[in-house]
Amino acid sequence: MKKIINDPGTVVLDALRGMALAHPDLLRVREDPAVIVRAEAPVPRKVAIVSGGGSGHEPLHGGFVGHGMLDAACPGAVFTSPTPDQVAAAVSLTDGGVGTLLIVKNYTGDVLNFETAAELAAADGVEVRTVVIGDDVAVRDSLHTAGRRGVGGTVLLEKIVGAAAERGASLETCEELAHRVLDRVRSMGLALTSCTVPHVGEPTFALGEDEMEVGIGIHGEPGRRRVPVGTADDAVRHLLDPILEDMPLGEGDRVLLFTNSTGGTPLIELYVAHGVAERLLAERGVRVERRLVGPYVTSLEMQGMSLTLLKLDDELVELWDAPVSTAALRWGI
Amino acid sequence: MKKIINDPGTVVLDALRGMALAHPDLLRVREDPAVIVRAEAPVPRKVAIVSGGGSGHEPLHGGFVGHGMLDAACPGAVFTSPTPDQVAAAVSLTDGGVGTLLIVKNYTGDVLNFETAAELAAADGVEVRTVVIGDDVAVRDSLHTAGRRGVGGTVLLEKIVGAAAERGASLETCEELAHRVLDRVRSMGLALTSCTVPHVGEPTFALGEDEMEVGIGIHGEPGRRRVPVGTADDAVRHLLDPILEDMPLGEGDRVLLFTNSTGGTPLIELYVAHGVAERLLAERGVRVERRLVGPYVTSLEMQGMSLTLLKLDDELVELWDAPVSTAALRWGI
Repeated sequence: MKKIINDPGTVVLDALRGMALAHPDLLRVREDPAVIVRAEAPVPRKVAIVSGGGSGHEPLHGGFVGHGMLDAACPGAVFTSPTPDQVAAAVSLTDGGVGTLLIVKNYTGDVLNFETAAELAAADGVEVRTVVIGDDVAVRDSLHTAGRRGVGGTVLLEKIVGAAAERGASLETCEELAHRVLDRVRSMGLALTSCTVPHVGEPTFALGEDEMEVGIGIHGEPGRRRVPVGTADDAVRHLLDPILEDMPLGEGDRVLLFTNSTGGTPLIELYVAHGVAERLLAERGVRVERRLVGPYVTSLEMQGMSLTLLKLDDELVELWDAPVSTAALRWGI
Repeated sequence: MKKIINDPGTVVLDALRGMALAHPDLLRVREDPAVIVRAEAPVPRKVAIVSGGGSGHEPLHGGFVGHGMLDAACPGAVFTSPTPDQVAAAVSLTDGGVGTLLIVKNYTGDVLNFETAAELAAADGVEVRTVVIGDDVAVRDSLHTAGRRGVGGTVLLEKIVGAAAERGASLETCEELAHRVLDRVRSMGLALTSCTVPHVGEPTFALGEDEMEVGIGIHGEPGRRRVPVGTADDAVRHLLDPILEDMPLGEGDRVLLFTNSTGGTPLIELYVAHGVAERLLAERGVRVERRLVGPYVTSLEMQGMSLTLLKLDDELVELWDAPVSTAALRWGI
């Protein structure tokens, strides 16, 4: 295992300390339990937006803490759910007095631990609502999931709900908006290589010299099938077709297209794939009105990519465009 | 070779098309010869800042085209200098009537081709100055270089000179400022793995299971030595010590610390390394006042990192903080 780390046992904490030093204007890190908190939290009379999940998907979620997006993120161990006390601390540190929305990716451990934390927070008098995102069309149940896995759509959800909260939307409005996004967002990914979890020390799975796994999960969970690595056109079709089968789009539909690297795939390849996806969508008459291209939901050093489509309307466009200032997404400020 | 591409022969053009589709608000792509041009170019009465180099280092340079940074970037084939006609076209497309500064990384082919382009532009009546950056302390001469190689410092140079040009600085002032940055910036990198150039199809070099190359060039050129992969502390010392030997810094010196991933190294490791570097600098009394952490000067999917230190003063801080709006760096707008 070749990694720039000091110790597999402290890699998350070491990274958090580096992150705190790198972004003193945006965030603070609370170490025990580990929580990444927006610098100016709590923001009075603003609904707090809190998320989290296993580490190893950076910049998700800590890179999205800041104005216009998350108030706090709870980083679990690598590919491991955060504990209830992390989430409870995050809620307590960011409570602005008008409620908290928890954004949870649909993995069994995450759902359970956020639920426990929500109960703890409610006992402390904080009004908490929870939305669970399952946007991955690849498989119904999976290694760590009942139902669909939460993947790339999480970034879009956090941005849009974060923008609404920043504008003073109520907890009910934020929750309704989240469900509207969930109805309209779909993703699918593929992997060319595995990744190696530091405390495991061996690749999570093995792929043949010319194979890729279509429908991969962000922790390396099995996908739909293994196919030969073909062209970029092939790769994009393997992702786009199942998404469009699940959420039909056609002439005049407006979308945000998010072309994501799982970490090890370089930007030059990602732009090739993005261009292909735009072309294939244009051929169906779908209008790509907003884009996000880069490594935003990663699986450590895994080579691969995912596509996420969000069906837009005027309100969603406006919330997407609203100012944001985080380590990973920043505009308008 | 596992890559998401259609054809090694068209990978740069395919990526440029994807990039143009991804960032219509920021840039346009001219295809023959290939140039990435700022959307609003030419900007009248502004000194044009033009750079470029081999592709495969994305987001360098195209990701830095936009308000507050570059007016144009010329992407060569992967790891190959752009041609003189690309650079000449970039100068012509961005000429605002008050001169053009060419920022060139010190590789023999780049220097020659930018020089030829400068002569073509001068013949067309554009006043052109050229600055050549060689910030890599690892080796004096190298596979493609006489003198020091141009690496991570290029991003900082482009940002700072771009900000000055945006504020209306003259060509002479931009050139002087560039030389001031060059005097104060030093870098060094290491690699844990090789990368594979698409049209070659095989890894550029081979490293043993537990080896890393210290002083690696951004095209995989040999460094100073191969050492066992140790801790993150070891890795950072391998980079920081030679930089500080070359440019001594101590109590009270102010720096910008740029912790860069060569592509395949994930953000979680990069933040670990960044934290180590901040700690080691603090132990010497050096004040880290600004930071940049991420994959900004990459070598395709190479796992590895580099550190760049820029010695700051008030003017450089102000220019660094100035608004920028590009695909890869964006703030204040």
